[in-house]
Amino acid sequence: MKLFYGPGACSIGIHLILEELGIPFETQAVSTRDGSVHKPDYLAINPKAKVPALLRDDGTVLTEFPVIAWWLAKSHPEAKLIPTDLEGEARTLEWLDYLCGTVHPQGFTRQFRPGNFGKDEADHPRVVAQGKAMSEKYLALIEGRIAGDPWLLASGYSVADAALFFLARWCVGPLGIALPPKIAKHYEAMKARPAVQRAVARETA
Amino acid sequence: MKLFYGPGACSIGIHLILEELGIPFETQAVSTRDGSVHKPDYLAINPKAKVPALLRDDGTVLTEFPVIAWWLAKSHPEAKLIPTDLEGEARTLEWLDYLCGTVHPQGFTRQFRPGNFGKDEADHPRVVAQGKAMSEKYLALIEGRIAGDPWLLASGYSVADAALFFLARWCVGPLGIALPPKIAKHYEAMKARPAVQRAVARETA
Ligand SMILES: N[C@@H](CCC(=O)N[C@@H](CS)C(=O)NCC(=O)O)C(=O)O
Ligand SMILES: N[C@@H](CCC(=O)N[C@@H](CS)C(=O)NCC(=O)O)C(=O)O
Repeated sequence: MKLFYGPGACSIGIHLILEELGIPFETQAVSTRDGSVHKPDYLAINPKAKVPALLRDDGTVLTEFPVIAWWLAKSHPEAKLIPTDLEGEARTLEWLDYLCGTVHPQGFTRQFRPGNFGKDEADHPRVVAQGKAMSEKYLALIEGRIAGDPWLLASGYSVADAALFFLARWCVGPLGIALPPKIAKHYEAMKARPAVQRAVARETA
Repeated sequence: MKLFYGPGACSIGIHLILEELGIPFETQAVSTRDGSVHKPDYLAINPKAKVPALLRDDGTVLTEFPVIAWWLAKSHPEAKLIPTDLEGEARTLEWLDYLCGTVHPQGFTRQFRPGNFGKDEADHPRVVAQGKAMSEKYLALIEGRIAGDPWLLASGYSVADAALFFLARWCVGPLGIALPPKIAKHYEAMKARPAVQRAVARETA
């Protein structure tokens, strides 16, 4: 298997899940900053021009963070990265979709790519401030819904935690957004996992 | 069960899935246009201030279109609305996430709510035109990936088709975007389904 990831991008979450599984995999960096995701080579892998994308051993490619995370967990049940009951699985997917489909593209992308939300450069500081305010509101909602300790689900660690990790990492890193207490504890617990450390080390080497 | 839907909103897709299942359910309209989704009554149901939301018989609420669609299909296997193999299920989720998490909020929302993407009213026509161009690009990508005939998956009708339906309905209706041939055929096939007709009739009564 081969993961296409962007340095600094949300794809670190899939990277760490692959490390959790302890299976062999390769990685290939595709920058989201210099236009590489839009080049023909990468469009042949993922015409949606996004990372993460997972090239699987049968030659097919799977896209969408929540789906790659879910598929990796389901196809490796021995790693216990997703609840086995329908309700637990639904809640895992609900977290993944909210974090990757709303919190990331609405709150965080406004800060990384204000040009997508306002034409004039003079307007970008306003867009960034709006994105920060939205992110803080989302983080407060997340904080109130964390059912486990320190993990998102009461049943324990799951692939949903990998999505909260990349968001928290952006807050603590480039964005300078303070984490509410439970999310801060979650972030520390993530950083203490050897799989997370291996993924971070590989991407920043 | 009770579905909270917005007249004219994406939630029509969940509505029609409930009709496909043939189970008893109630509906409650919550307008996305007059601020009703942000009122305390509705925030108590879904603090994310979005439709669809599904209040289930055990009193818990499930959110996120892809997850509600997946859960309804999985908890009613007799309706055969999702493939039973892992790969087919992954592809169903991949379609749902792409249609609901990228195509809708990036391309279509730019046209419905240009104010989210540009502050000045004078700039809104540009945002709407950009949203239209993005939607047309997304539709071309979707057209090229349709594996079935007329359905999205080669294996047959699934809950993923409910997501393409609400997008096509917006194109043919308020947005005036021409559908590529396969998507047009898909839309006609959807409209011919009695469950779809019942959901549309109920929302427009
Ligand atoms: N819906 C996709 C979105 C992923 C996404 O937005 N990835 C960003 C990196 S964090 C990206 O590839 N951006 C490149 C671009 O938009 O040009 C998913 O869930 O995987
Ligand atoms: N991530 C949500 C998004 C749903 C969504 O965007 N719904 C729109 C209606 S089409 C909405 O509730 N908009 C109200 C608003 O944004 O104020 C999902 O997949 O269910």
